Amino acid sequence: MNTYSIGIDIGGTNTDIGLVRDDGRCLAKKNITTRNYFDASIYVSDVYDQIKLLMTENGVDAVDGIGVAAPVGNYYTGCIENASNLNFKGVTNLREMFGKYTDAPVVVSNDANAAAYGELIYGGARGMKHFIMFTLGTGVGSGIVVDGKLVLGKTGGAGELGHAILIPDGRLCGCGGRGCLETYTSSKGIVRTTVELLEQRLDYKGALSHYKPSEISSKMVGEAANDGDPLAIEVLEKTGYWLGIAMANAVTFSGPEAIFLMGGPVKAGEALLKPLRKSFEEHLCFIFRGSVDIRVSELPDNDAAILGAAALTKALW
Amino acid sequence: MNTYSIGIDIGGTNTDIGLVRDDGRCLAKKNITTRNYFDASIYVSDVYDQIKLLMTENGVDAVDGIGVAAPVGNYYTGCIENASNLNFKGVTNLREMFGKYTDAPVVVSNDANAAAYGELIYGGARGMKHFIMFTLGTGVGSGIVVDGKLVLGKTGGAGELGHAILIPDGRLCGCGGRGCLETYTSSKGIVRTTVELLEQRLDYKGALSHYKPSEISSKMVGEAANDGDPLAIEVLEKTGYWLGIAMANAVTFSGPEAIFLMGGPVKAGEALLKPLRKSFEEHLCFIFRGSVDIRVSELPDNDAAILGAAALTKALW
Repeated sequence: MNTYSIGIDIGGTNTDIGLVRDDGRCLAKKNITTRNYFDASIYVSDVYDQIKLLMTENGVDAVDGIGVAAPVGNYYTGCIENASNLNFKGVTNLREMFGKYTDAPVVVSNDANAAAYGELIYGGARGMKHFIMFTLGTGVGSGIVVDGKLVLGKTGGAGELGHAILIPDGRLCGCGGRGCLETYTSSKGIVRTTVELLEQRLDYKGALSHYKPSEISSKMVGEAANDGDPLAIEVLEKTGYWLGIAMANAVTFSGPEAIFLMGGPVKAGEALLKPLRKSFEEHLCFIFRGSVDIRVSELPDNDAAILGAAALTKALW
Repeated sequence: MNTYSIGIDIGGTNTDIGLVRDDGRCLAKKNITTRNYFDASIYVSDVYDQIKLLMTENGVDAVDGIGVAAPVGNYYTGCIENASNLNFKGVTNLREMFGKYTDAPVVVSNDANAAAYGELIYGGARGMKHFIMFTLGTGVGSGIVVDGKLVLGKTGGAGELGHAILIPDGRLCGCGGRGCLETYTSSKGIVRTTVELLEQRLDYKGALSHYKPSEISSKMVGEAANDGDPLAIEVLEKTGYWLGIAMANAVTFSGPEAIFLMGGPVKAGEALLKPLRKSFEEHLCFIFRGSVDIRVSELPDNDAAILGAAALTKALW
């Protein structure tokens, strides 16, 4: 008999709520508008209404648990704390608030940790004990699995490889630091590299030259690279080079079986992955050579966040 | 009643063998000359003779286990594999070879992992669940503890932060890579920085100007810095700056409670630690601010390696 769980992906704009079967299929989804809520208790009550709807509409009597992926979601405390992109400020104890409505276990974590756990339970990392997930988006997130468990650290905030310093005194980061990986390989970082190159290559007349810097997106760069645009290709070569170093460095830490990649910029495909693998092999310490695969997430794009959140309910720790 | 274990520290030149009481006191030590042995089975037999001597001389009937710290010692396999500084070549299965003489469990690991575990069982990390040990010597080693367990990774080789790349395309490393942490903050790295600075500061007439580059040691630099030598102070400021970045990066991985330091260069004291702490605080991602202590190992210098090896027998994993 199948079992079910709920995955909730809280974004600044929308909240996606999904009913997930134990074989990793998201059977049905609901959506509410996060930014309409200024009171967390009303928000949680409305989310729970959607959970009940999902269950009754799909003939599911009980769920194994509710997993919540949220910016700065903390596994230890069950809270989201001072999320800059949410209207309910301060500390919101989601575990306690959902606990008013259900006895099912409620597990909270941040997006990248949930993504890693989704890969472990439902994706390409099934059966692995040691792997690392990098999520490339507006920022760069990471989730690290050691001995089959997420690395959470003292405060629950471990796995922030987007803020490991790749280039000392390099690009200024939103975190206040300089040279963080995120400033080079997030979608924003890719745009930054593109704009820098556009300023240098004044003879370049390709597709990206028709846009103002503020109009360029990493998606456009990926598409242009796949159309053979030389500047876009160079941008992704640089991006892959940087990410390859960061991944080689991550390997010295936990010696994983694989590193997974997820997120918009990965859709550029081999234009990013080929230089990335080259750089990774070049920079990987010889004692790890041949022991680590670079892989793209096997979770379906549309449901990845919900599956990751639902997977948290299978946490063994 | 006290219990006892054996700690064996295998170096290229000497092997130290110690009898360790469960309160972390090394009661007695023996020593044999590693480099005299070309046959591993004779070596192990002679080491075991010393173990028996230690036990009879100290009235100990039984030990809980035998812990072995060795270059490229592998916890999973119990082997040392192709150690470049030992005369017995290839793969030496120490666990199996000691097993011929004793039923006590035999645990093998590399030096830096043993150092971390020594700190956990007998030193300043007692009671901690998450910490990182950096050992500064000819190279830079590291041992990482997550959830109270050593991070070993897929092959047992995890925790090689000395070969994480600090400066892309930086100094050439013995591993064949470029810019590895080890090339900047090992004792050799410190000498390298000193020689570089001596070549630049032609007006410098201090203590270190009286030596040829090949005569300079990191110990001399530490002593000169503590005597107020401006060039030596600058060397350790740079070393601390680099190590601070590496430590801040390590925190983004595992969010530890503390980072410990061990090894010769640490004896320079505040001349190294002050700039190190400054750089660490500057480069630490804000979400970890105030949550991580920089600490010096609390294991007694002379027995640290034996205690680390003995501590491996208390491994819970």
